[in-house]
Amino acid sequence: MGPPVEPPPGITDARLARQIAFLLEIDQLKSVLRQSHLIDRSRRENDAEHSWHLAMLAVVLGEYAAAEVDQARVIRMLLIHDLVEVYAGDTFLYDTQAAASQAERERAAADRLFPQLPGDQADELRALWDEFEERRTPDARFARALDRVQPLLLNFYTAGSTWLPHRVSRADVLAHQKTVEDGSPALWAYIRVMIDEAVRRGYLLA
Amino acid sequence: MGPPVEPPPGITDARLARQIAFLLEIDQLKSVLRQSHLIDRSRRENDAEHSWHLAMLAVVLGEYAAAEVDQARVIRMLLIHDLVEVYAGDTFLYDTQAAASQAERERAAADRLFPQLPGDQADELRALWDEFEERRTPDARFARALDRVQPLLLNFYTAGSTWLPHRVSRADVLAHQKTVEDGSPALWAYIRVMIDEAVRRGYLLA
Repeated sequence: MGPPVEPPPGITDARLARQIAFLLEIDQLKSVLRQSHLIDRSRRENDAEHSWHLAMLAVVLGEYAAAEVDQARVIRMLLIHDLVEVYAGDTFLYDTQAAASQAERERAAADRLFPQLPGDQADELRALWDEFEERRTPDARFARALDRVQPLLLNFYTAGSTWLPHRVSRADVLAHQKTVEDGSPALWAYIRVMIDEAVRRGYLLA
Repeated sequence: MGPPVEPPPGITDARLARQIAFLLEIDQLKSVLRQSHLIDRSRRENDAEHSWHLAMLAVVLGEYAAAEVDQARVIRMLLIHDLVEVYAGDTFLYDTQAAASQAERERAAADRLFPQLPGDQADELRALWDEFEERRTPDARFARALDRVQPLLLNFYTAGSTWLPHRVSRADVLAHQKTVEDGSPALWAYIRVMIDEAVRRGYLLA
């Protein structure tokens, strides 16, 4: 991390300067690498691309939500859901050791990140992030389902490029069934077929 | 580009299969490089990251729109505004030769890309993309202003990393003043100060 971003001399609008500093701070999300690979297998995906891709899933797949959802809220939730990783880093879904400390690390990151915004916006985005984490509302449940579906798609269409080196099994993937099914039974039906086929093709351990 | 994405055998929902194929096709946006660099100057930014960053600008800076805007529409517009570049590539703002053929190349790309979605969604996203291109509505004008502001911020906070090698001048940047000012007078006031400071610091030719 570099020094905090200073506005050019002569800027008197402190609120706007603060908002812009936040937007530059989160530029770091483009450098947080995930375990997934791009479909062309050229490299690993980063959090900013992942967040964009998820927002596009919400745009295109909204009709499959388990309950009526507010698409605009789901999209905003997905745009911000990984912001804390600029400080906490990405935690691989199947890394149980890192997962143990994940919630705490991410809460600490949220405490540090969101207050960089003006108070009203800090509260609003923090509440939206908490809602995603707590997965109690239909919007959050659908958003979380999409967050599981996207890496499954990338894995399947790259012949298990993340599953195989990490020795991920069918049972590991099925452990997250409830997250997808709760948010979208229709997407779960699709993914279930895909998982079986992935095992058949040797992308995923039986 | 690889072969078209086939659903796993056993999938009978043709609409969903088509939507997922589209979502995998646009994965290529992550490989379309722009001229801008990340704030840490480690590499060039790609279109998917740029689209996410713009959507975050819309989330945080919505209050500065020139007219009342529908934030959710602005965000969706920004998420999709560069999709055509999976076929048409990125055109550098200050490359006047490429700009001459840009509109035609991008229209051809739109004609090829959006119909990969089911008809209702193809029409909806194409209309949103056309609206952005035509910049006639308040939503489109605000979205376009943000699309100009984001690379200006990246350039300023990387000491002119794109401006200098391309010998971009103050007059070149000011030629786009109307796009920012039409969408957001408040952001233009900020950017104007930033441009003067960029010239003073030698990031931008006088």
